[in-house]
Amino acid sequence: MRPQIDIEALANDIKAGDRTALSRAITLVESKRLQDRSTARELMTRFQTVDTLLSSTRIGITGSPGAGKSTFIEVFGTSLTSAGNQVAVLAIDPSSTRTRGSILGDKTRMENLSRDPLAFVRPSPAGTTLGGVARATREAILLCEAAGYKHILIETVGVGQSEHAVRDLCDFMALLVLPGGGDDLQGIKRGIVELTDLVIVNKADGDRVPLARETASHYNRALHLQPARVSGWSPTAIQVSSTSGEGVAGFSESLRLFLETIGEAGILNQRRAQALRYFDRSWGESAMELFASDPIIKSLLVDFRQNILAGSYSAEQANTTLLDHLSKRMLL
Amino acid sequence: MRPQIDIEALANDIKAGDRTALSRAITLVESKRLQDRSTARELMTRFQTVDTLLSSTRIGITGSPGAGKSTFIEVFGTSLTSAGNQVAVLAIDPSSTRTRGSILGDKTRMENLSRDPLAFVRPSPAGTTLGGVARATREAILLCEAAGYKHILIETVGVGQSEHAVRDLCDFMALLVLPGGGDDLQGIKRGIVELTDLVIVNKADGDRVPLARETASHYNRALHLQPARVSGWSPTAIQVSSTSGEGVAGFSESLRLFLETIGEAGILNQRRAQALRYFDRSWGESAMELFASDPIIKSLLVDFRQNILAGSYSAEQANTTLLDHLSKRMLL
Repeated sequence: MRPQIDIEALANDIKAGDRTALSRAITLVESKRLQDRSTARELMTRFQTVDTLLSSTRIGITGSPGAGKSTFIEVFGTSLTSAGNQVAVLAIDPSSTRTRGSILGDKTRMENLSRDPLAFVRPSPAGTTLGGVARATREAILLCEAAGYKHILIETVGVGQSEHAVRDLCDFMALLVLPGGGDDLQGIKRGIVELTDLVIVNKADGDRVPLARETASHYNRALHLQPARVSGWSPTAIQVSSTSGEGVAGFSESLRLFLETIGEAGILNQRRAQALRYFDRSWGESAMELFASDPIIKSLLVDFRQNILAGSYSAEQANTTLLDHLSKRMLL
Repeated sequence: MRPQIDIEALANDIKAGDRTALSRAITLVESKRLQDRSTARELMTRFQTVDTLLSSTRIGITGSPGAGKSTFIEVFGTSLTSAGNQVAVLAIDPSSTRTRGSILGDKTRMENLSRDPLAFVRPSPAGTTLGGVARATREAILLCEAAGYKHILIETVGVGQSEHAVRDLCDFMALLVLPGGGDDLQGIKRGIVELTDLVIVNKADGDRVPLARETASHYNRALHLQPARVSGWSPTAIQVSSTSGEGVAGFSESLRLFLETIGEAGILNQRRAQALRYFDRSWGESAMELFASDPIIKSLLVDFRQNILAGSYSAEQANTTLLDHLSKRMLL
C-alpha cells in the first residue's frame, strides 16, 4: 500500500508552482491502479474549472520519427522561456513500450529545455493504450495549467490514431515534415494534414534549402485545396531550421496570428467541443473502473473469466449475466 | 416503433435454417438502436452454447484491396457447396462508409456464390466502429452456426486493426497477396503475417507464374523466421489461381492439415481464449448501453453535455458527478 495522499495539500502545492508536487500528481494521473484512479479523480475535481477558462495556449507538435520534433521543441521552447514564459512539454506515444522516461528523457533530447527553470519536460507514459494516454495527457495539461504554465507543448509521433488524440487536446496543431518526401507524404499523411493548422518544413538549412522551398510549395498547394477547419484561418507551410533558429520567429508569428483569428471565444468553443468528445469517450471507461473496484462485480468477473476459459460459459452468457446483475442493483 | 419481435419464433426459424429469419436476425445484431440491442442480446442467449461447441470451421480471409479476395472466396466457396457443404460469407470493413450491401453486394462480386442455395452471403455493416463491427460479426457467426452453416468465411480488407478483429473471430486465417510486392509487403504487413496461418499468393497464372513462385519463396523465408502461433503448425505460402481454380484444392488440403494439427481441443481452447478477450473488451460497452437506456442517466447525460458545451461544466466534473450517481444507486 502506498501512503495516503493528502489531496488538499498536493493541490495547494501544485497551485503554488511546486514542480515536485506537479510531477507527483502527473505520476498519479498516469497510474492505472484503481486506488490511484480514484485519488486522481478526486484531485482533478480541485481543478475542474481550469479547462473552461483560458489560462494557457495548448500547442500540438506532430511528425514522423526523425522529423526533428524534439530539436524544434527545444529551440521554440527556449525562445519562450528566454522571454520569461513558463513552458510545459508533454508527450503522447502509445506505441512506446520503452520504460517510462526514455522517450523524452535521454540526455541528448531537449538538453537545454530540460535544465531550464522555466520549463517542465515530462516524457510519455509507457505501455498504455491510446485512450489511457489521452486521458493521462489531458489531466496532465490541466495540472500544468493549474501550476501556472502558460504554454503547453504536446508532442506526438505521427503514427496511427495519436494525432486525433492530440488534435483534441490542443488549440493549435503543427505538423513537422522534412524537405522532400512530397508525394509520399501527401498520400499517407492526408488525414493528418486535415487536422493541421500549420505545416513546418523543418531542417530547411544548407543544401536542403531549395528542396525545403519546393516541399513547402507542395504542401501549400495541398493545404489550399482543403476546407477550412477554423473559419478565417488558412493553414500554410513555413520553413524552419531548428539548428540555426531561422524561421522559429515566423512560427511564433503564425501562432499569434492564428490565436488572433480564432479569438478567445473561438478557442473556448473549440475546447468545449473537445471536452464534450472527451466526456462521451471517457465516461464508460470511468464507470468500468468504478465497477471493477466493487467486490461483488470483481468476483463475478473472475468467475465469468474462469468459466469462459473452461468452456462452460460463452462470452454472451457472461455479458448477459453481468448486465442482469447491474440492472438489478441499479433498479433499472 | 418497429413491431415487437417474437424472439422465440425467430430463434426457432433460424435453427430450422430459414434464410430470411437469419438475415433478419443479422440485421438486428447490426443495429445500434438501444431497443434493438436489448432484443439482440435476448436473442443471442438462445444460442449461447454454440460458441463452446465445435459446429463449424471459421476461416478468415484477409488481404489488400485488389488482392482478389472475393474471386478467391467465390471459387473456394463454390468448391465447398459443390461437395454439398453449406457456406456462410461475412465481411468486416470498418473503413466502409458505403451504404449497406454495396461492399459485397454489387452484382459482379461472388455472382455464383450469391445465387447458390447452399451459400449465404452477407455484406459488411456500414458506418460502424471496428468494435461495433467485430461484435456484430461475432454474433452473425453464432447465428450462421445456429442455422447449420458448417463453413464460415470471414473476409476483411487488410488495413488498420481489422485483421486483429478477424483473427479473434476465426479458427484459421489466410492472407491473400499478389505476385510481386515483396519487400514492401514484408515491411508494412509484418504485423499481419504474424497473425496468419497460411499465405496465398493469388493470381498465380499466365505470365505471373514465375513472379508468383518468387513471391511465395519470399514469404516462405519470412514465415520460417517467425515463432509458431500454433504448436506444430508452420505457416507456409501457397500459389493459387482463382480464375483457373488451380491451387484451390491445395488450399483445402492446407486447411484440413491445420485442423488436424491443432485438433478439436486446440480449436476449442483457441475459441475460448478469443471469447475471453471479447468479453473483456465488450462488457463495458454493453454496460454503457444499458445505462444510456435508463431515464435518469439519460437525462443526466443530456444535462452534462449541454453544460460542457456551454462552458459551465468541465468534462472531469461531469464524469465525477456521473460516477457519484452510479455509486449511490449501486450502493458501491
